[in-house]
Amino acid sequence: MTVSIRRVVLDTSLFVNPDVRFSLGVTPTEALGNFLELAREAKMLEFYMPPSTFHELMNFVNEKQISGEFLLHLRQRPPRKHEILVPGYLLYELIEETRDRVNKGLRIAENGVRGTEKRKIDEIIQDMRKKYREALREGIIDSREDVDLLLLARELDALLITADQGLVKWAEKLGIAWLLPERFRDFVTAAIEQSGDQPAVD
Amino acid sequence: MTVSIRRVVLDTSLFVNPDVRFSLGVTPTEALGNFLELAREAKMLEFYMPPSTFHELMNFVNEKQISGEFLLHLRQRPPRKHEILVPGYLLYELIEETRDRVNKGLRIAENGVRGTEKRKIDEIIQDMRKKYREALREGIIDSREDVDLLLLARELDALLITADQGLVKWAEKLGIAWLLPERFRDFVTAAIEQSGDQPAVD
Repeated sequence: MTVSIRRVVLDTSLFVNPDVRFSLGVTPTEALGNFLELAREAKMLEFYMPPSTFHELMNFVNEKQISGEFLLHLRQRPPRKHEILVPGYLLYELIEETRDRVNKGLRIAENGVRGTEKRKIDEIIQDMRKKYREALREGIIDSREDVDLLLLARELDALLITADQGLVKWAEKLGIAWLLPERFRDFVTAAIEQSGDQPAVD
Repeated sequence: MTVSIRRVVLDTSLFVNPDVRFSLGVTPTEALGNFLELAREAKMLEFYMPPSTFHELMNFVNEKQISGEFLLHLRQRPPRKHEILVPGYLLYELIEETRDRVNKGLRIAENGVRGTEKRKIDEIIQDMRKKYREALREGIIDSREDVDLLLLARELDALLITADQGLVKWAEKLGIAWLLPERFRDFVTAAIEQSGDQPAVD
């Protein structure tokens, strides 16, 4: 019996999101170390991260702490974005999502202006910025990094590990398997156990 | 020698945009009438419009004025949006465009709040709405109708007639031939002359 290789694409949230990284470690550096230990053993898994996501991750970790072995086990690979095809209907989805958000943004701006009768301008602006960013960014895909993760996972037919609700929603649209970071350790541990029983095949 | 059929997808701007419709008629109704005369003669051209765009057009024309012959010559056809594939890199383009606009929207909102020191709130809100909509909508594709036009033209390998700068920009990205409505009459007239010389083939 052969064990087929499973590919896994990692978002930064596995290492840096305080809500979820506890499964791998308390600090990003600790999480990276524990990931490396798991990856070393998990012969039936291949781990990938787009360079844009890796770059984001480096905001949380000192790049000098990244060992050669880590680079060996976490493959940095951009998606072939000019070759991958996606169904045209996704353009509608993206546009409708944006349209809703844009309308929400305008409501927030209007409330901001109306609020000047009661509160200080600087206070309102601070508050408005927060609300506006939340309304227009959260829960949607809104960056190159997001699209990199989705297209790479789609291209490699990989499992996407992410805590980002916008990415999960789009993984569903694109037919991409996804898993929350909370279950990452359990998943990898099971893979290690299985590949220990059986010979891994490349 | 055979003349091959050329497909043409029409945006509403051909009939309703005051800047461009003069080539077909002063009122939308007149433009529709002149279009019909041309379409009747242009045996080598097939004209298409997505139903969503047709629906928009009906805001400018009394639907009762639409003859059966008009329905025969202007084919209402939605794109096969679940079958057409587009390169994944377009998702990046759409997201980056939106991101820039969203940032502009926030600047406008901030200026709105700051303006309350000098002007009346109702005035500012009116002004802000206009600026906001302009910043977030103009020059980009922002509606289902826009995507319908693009995907239909792409699917049919058709010439897209539009005055909309956002559509022109996206036609370029998608490899869609486009023509401004100003030149529509000249184009159709040339097609009529050519098909008069040679036998049309279906």
